[in-house]
Amino acid sequence: MDSERAGELDRIRRPTVLVDREKALANIERAVEKARNAGVSLRPHFKTHRSVPVGGWFRDFGVRAITVSSVSMARHFASDGWSDITVAFPLNVRELDGVEELAGSVALGVAVDCRESLDALAASGAPARVWVKVDAGAGRAGVPWDQPDRASALALAASRSGCLRFAGILSHDGHTYAERSREGVRRVSVESHARMASVREAVLAAGVERCLVSTGDTPSASLCDTFEGADEIRPGNFVFNDLTQVAVGSCERHDIAVAVACPVVGVQRKRRRIVLYGGSVHLSKERLGDGAGVIYGEALTRWPGDDQGTPVVSVWQEHGLVEADAETLEQVSVGDLLYVLPVHSCQTCNLHRSYVTLDGEALEAM
Amino acid sequence: MDSERAGELDRIRRPTVLVDREKALANIERAVEKARNAGVSLRPHFKTHRSVPVGGWFRDFGVRAITVSSVSMARHFASDGWSDITVAFPLNVRELDGVEELAGSVALGVAVDCRESLDALAASGAPARVWVKVDAGAGRAGVPWDQPDRASALALAASRSGCLRFAGILSHDGHTYAERSREGVRRVSVESHARMASVREAVLAAGVERCLVSTGDTPSASLCDTFEGADEIRPGNFVFNDLTQVAVGSCERHDIAVAVACPVVGVQRKRRRIVLYGGSVHLSKERLGDGAGVIYGEALTRWPGDDQGTPVVSVWQEHGLVEADAETLEQVSVGDLLYVLPVHSCQTCNLHRSYVTLDGEALEAM
Repeated sequence: MDSERAGELDRIRRPTVLVDREKALANIERAVEKARNAGVSLRPHFKTHRSVPVGGWFRDFGVRAITVSSVSMARHFASDGWSDITVAFPLNVRELDGVEELAGSVALGVAVDCRESLDALAASGAPARVWVKVDAGAGRAGVPWDQPDRASALALAASRSGCLRFAGILSHDGHTYAERSREGVRRVSVESHARMASVREAVLAAGVERCLVSTGDTPSASLCDTFEGADEIRPGNFVFNDLTQVAVGSCERHDIAVAVACPVVGVQRKRRRIVLYGGSVHLSKERLGDGAGVIYGEALTRWPGDDQGTPVVSVWQEHGLVEADAETLEQVSVGDLLYVLPVHSCQTCNLHRSYVTLDGEALEAM
Repeated sequence: MDSERAGELDRIRRPTVLVDREKALANIERAVEKARNAGVSLRPHFKTHRSVPVGGWFRDFGVRAITVSSVSMARHFASDGWSDITVAFPLNVRELDGVEELAGSVALGVAVDCRESLDALAASGAPARVWVKVDAGAGRAGVPWDQPDRASALALAASRSGCLRFAGILSHDGHTYAERSREGVRRVSVESHARMASVREAVLAAGVERCLVSTGDTPSASLCDTFEGADEIRPGNFVFNDLTQVAVGSCERHDIAVAVACPVVGVQRKRRRIVLYGGSVHLSKERLGDGAGVIYGEALTRWPGDDQGTPVVSVWQEHGLVEADAETLEQVSVGDLLYVLPVHSCQTCNLHRSYVTLDGEALEAM
């Protein structure tokens, strides 16, 4: 380790999200090239990092259109000059004033999946682009893909509204996360895209002139080369990746661009455990595995450098407990840092208001 | 509902923690009386609320000594005039400068469970009170209770250090949370207190003049009437309570003093589900139950008022999914609020920087 790097680490007092900028840039570049080669637009989701400076890295690769998950997040990035923003979350009619204000200053996309929300949006007079949210198999929100008449009716109503502009149909294929192989993710992705294409057919047949298809999730974006049926993809997690993506098979451990540096506050050599200042308020309660195999992260003694860590087997509010092998126990003392690869980087990053790059630059987040 | 209350609720735009001040005050009063009747000091843990105004409610009941879980939290409450603070977390030697500074201005207790940390603390010159952390059965941090020689050696070293003052031994009996009956919690609590008393005997026999015993967890504090062997108790969660305490049996649903008001963004009548703007970044990923019975909260149509809710069966970053009964589905429309009782109020509150009382007062938090 060079001395400058060691100096930066010495300054870490509390659990701190470290970002490996080089890895993040490589992850962004890969997605940008993937989208270009596949002939789809990339509208990355910014909910993973929620950070203006990280957003700037995307801008450097030519990205101009983004996705967010809330009106507040749209406002945050609009104030940094982003002017083409889709809120990929069912419209919250309690925030219509915010939607109206934003739609007056940026190209704002909103998602609706019911008539009540669409009517409320139309009545607000907000000049928004409307995406009809479709459930292509994820089973969360959206008009079910096998009820194309409902999607068509919403699309028609939106396209005939005075102030609104109908943009297209939008899905999030979160069910790719249940897969544990490249083939499985591809199968789910191809199936969902075919479902979206069939809904588009119905919308066009109902008399709507133009209907884009927007889909998006990191496993598909990382593992598929084509997105037949889609015009735009909206992955988000890929910028940082995490152990969940490793489990799905959509990245390798060395593609994970964030780790939480956690001070060691106890070494229990007989019990073969290490106690970290780093609990659920720093890592989140996101877990991977089942039963006795549940983990909340993997702790490394060096990062970047090491890839395979020892499991964080329990977290409480501020404590984390690492089940350490003999080699790790040998190396670690109270006051050292361990670097925890997160199970779900979106959740972990959400708990921090800033991150630090390996060369010590602070990256503010929402 | 009176019109003033309705007006306050109308102003809620996004997922918001509501605090029922009357319930919280009743919870505080009960704990204060319990401690007084049992002849122990109450040093409540403030990590649950992390809020200066909520801290003020404790002050009104005569509480003058508090517990926190980090140096930052100690600093936060010291700046509000709290002058007797124990950091009930293993000393983080990377924050010795902060410890030293605080110990110069307030009566600061710190917890140590190894010689390295104690030596580093002594070397810093911080005039801190030292608590030797003992594991009385929780299996997390601390010197195991059945190794009293180790605890005694630390106590002796602390009491002989120039700047430090040895205060006593401290445990957190978190294993009461695994119990599901009043009898079970009492059994664990009595056993842990007996273990702590035996460690104190060993410490005194080793030649240390005075050794207080500090214990604490909400299930014991709520369900036991005596704390034989302890001088001080440090429960925290009781101020707000949550569904975990209901599961343990240490409170009733109507004792829960917080709920997250979440806007309804979708009503899926056929699937009998409601989609909330209220996900893991608002509720946390804390869960209760197993397998298909896992829940992330319980959603009520009225709160306070209703006690029994319908389960929040899934959470994503911003979405929550409620499995609703026919009656709830009948009543609820897009744009309404549902009130989610949290699984773990400490985790949920940690995700919010302020709360709102039922009469609309904002309560800032760390």
